[in-house]
Amino acid sequence: MMTANSTNWAHSPHIYVENVPGSDKAYEVREDEIRKHLDALSITPRITCRSSDDRDLEAFRRADILIAAKLDSAFIASEGKSLKLIQCTSAGVERFAPFDWLPTSTVLTNASGVHAGKVAEFGLMATLMLHNRVPAIATRQRHHDWARELSGTAKGKRVMIYGVGALGGAIADRLHEAGFRITGVRRSGEPVASVEHMIRPSDFREELPRVEILILACPLTPETKGLLGAEEIAALPKGASVLNVARGGVVDHIALVRALEDGHLSGAILDVFDKEPLPADSNLWDIPNLMVFPHVSADAPEGYIDRCLMILADNLGRVLAEKPLRNVVDRQLGY
Amino acid sequence: MMTANSTNWAHSPHIYVENVPGSDKAYEVREDEIRKHLDALSITPRITCRSSDDRDLEAFRRADILIAAKLDSAFIASEGKSLKLIQCTSAGVERFAPFDWLPTSTVLTNASGVHAGKVAEFGLMATLMLHNRVPAIATRQRHHDWARELSGTAKGKRVMIYGVGALGGAIADRLHEAGFRITGVRRSGEPVASVEHMIRPSDFREELPRVEILILACPLTPETKGLLGAEEIAALPKGASVLNVARGGVVDHIALVRALEDGHLSGAILDVFDKEPLPADSNLWDIPNLMVFPHVSADAPEGYIDRCLMILADNLGRVLAEKPLRNVVDRQLGY
Repeated sequence: MMTANSTNWAHSPHIYVENVPGSDKAYEVREDEIRKHLDALSITPRITCRSSDDRDLEAFRRADILIAAKLDSAFIASEGKSLKLIQCTSAGVERFAPFDWLPTSTVLTNASGVHAGKVAEFGLMATLMLHNRVPAIATRQRHHDWARELSGTAKGKRVMIYGVGALGGAIADRLHEAGFRITGVRRSGEPVASVEHMIRPSDFREELPRVEILILACPLTPETKGLLGAEEIAALPKGASVLNVARGGVVDHIALVRALEDGHLSGAILDVFDKEPLPADSNLWDIPNLMVFPHVSADAPEGYIDRCLMILADNLGRVLAEKPLRNVVDRQLGY
Repeated sequence: MMTANSTNWAHSPHIYVENVPGSDKAYEVREDEIRKHLDALSITPRITCRSSDDRDLEAFRRADILIAAKLDSAFIASEGKSLKLIQCTSAGVERFAPFDWLPTSTVLTNASGVHAGKVAEFGLMATLMLHNRVPAIATRQRHHDWARELSGTAKGKRVMIYGVGALGGAIADRLHEAGFRITGVRRSGEPVASVEHMIRPSDFREELPRVEILILACPLTPETKGLLGAEEIAALPKGASVLNVARGGVVDHIALVRALEDGHLSGAILDVFDKEPLPADSNLWDIPNLMVFPHVSADAPEGYIDRCLMILADNLGRVLAEKPLRNVVDRQLGY
């Protein structure tokens, strides 16, 4: 934790914004937006907004706060020694791990939770699609095949959500409202109102035979890499289906494809891949009963940066009030 | 209305069930199920359950009540003169219109509302799919094309539901909960809590320019046949989309296909067609941004017949209490 005598910088911090050149305007962090959020706290920042191909090295060196979507770890390690706080505007920071480049006195916070409303809505849609066998219907459409499978309503159908954090928890709330029965998998095992049955990762495999729809919503870490492999898929009942809104690396795609082709799984919806955009020559495009989404589950551009800046403003208020910060990335856990 | 002295039959009615040979067991009407529902009302029916290829003509001729999915109009006209009540286990009865074959003293009731829970859930799923451009994503998947369009959340997005009866009303409730803003089109113009703006069919065209997603959920009648034609589609804003869970005949498919091919509409989901199963050589299977569903929006086999028999039992209770029946098909309106 920062100590009281080390928080004076937070009254009028130097803020350096590094925007990504050529990215969507909706994701650009602008000076007036930052001021709007900090005015209410009587914080008067000095702000430098630049893109990564047009840096202001002097301003960067004296910055207290860095706001950026992409973290240039080598550059931060060598030139960011004054940084007290880095607000990453991405929720997942696994591409910047391990965090040995992060100055020991610098706190890294992520945008976890900013996507929650959109992901929850996407998760509801995709789970209803799996329940209604839409991936199989779309595959049959390619073959002009009118085969009906009736699936009834969602009421009481068993869903497991792996990762009940900001995203998974928001998905759980929507699915619970829609009548699904939810098992959650969470490191802490702490209960959540919309989750009927909360388990720890160590009990994951044992629970799989009772899962109709498996939703992956965890961060990608050394622990979750490849967590859904051939054995775990085989432990799911025949006809189960899978939704991945986490990261591509969480799933063994070779095992998943095999289970879709041999009919053990009834369908899958993937929104995330090892390499994005998914290359045109990937075999995943043509696998039966698999729907490929171009990583759209989380993106709701309207108000995105606004929600990121709310986290930053909230955290600066916490620094001044000497309270623990939120959205802090754990260097060891990687999220 | 039936008069008091004409309701004695309802204490111990002759019930004749005509099941469809070879249909799914879930849709078979069984004697024990009927008794279960009527026991509570102290009604002691005499029941004959036969399939249409194995009729009991004598029992049919003396029956007070016919329960059937398919109505053999010629047979009923000639042999069903004792029938007081026909409970059709289908919600839509347009294929039996016009109703000149129906004995004037016989009341025809349909299964409207039996599908409401399932259709509402399907409607929520399909509307979220249109909002998230899933038909376009599925089309692009065929071409290995990773193109992203971000759509934000559903909050405040404008949906019009044509037909706010048992189905459309149930869909409206779910979409309202999900944050959509709903305009309803209804003959009576009567308000419904989840519908922000209720209009009459005469104001339909005028409202179209403000609709992002149009849902068709009305019965097929002479008035609604072809209601979505080239002019109405052109009146929708560019990028709008269409969901049809009503009947195929409500839509001019040639006009719809043209608007999908020229990009005026961003997508469509059709669950109903002029001819079902949709023939393998129909051009609809391959139209860009069109998803073909094999008429699954309404079917929730679990408890289906149970819900139909609840309507019948409710109506027999109403006969005995001399109250107006529910689910009565209007011979003129056709639903």
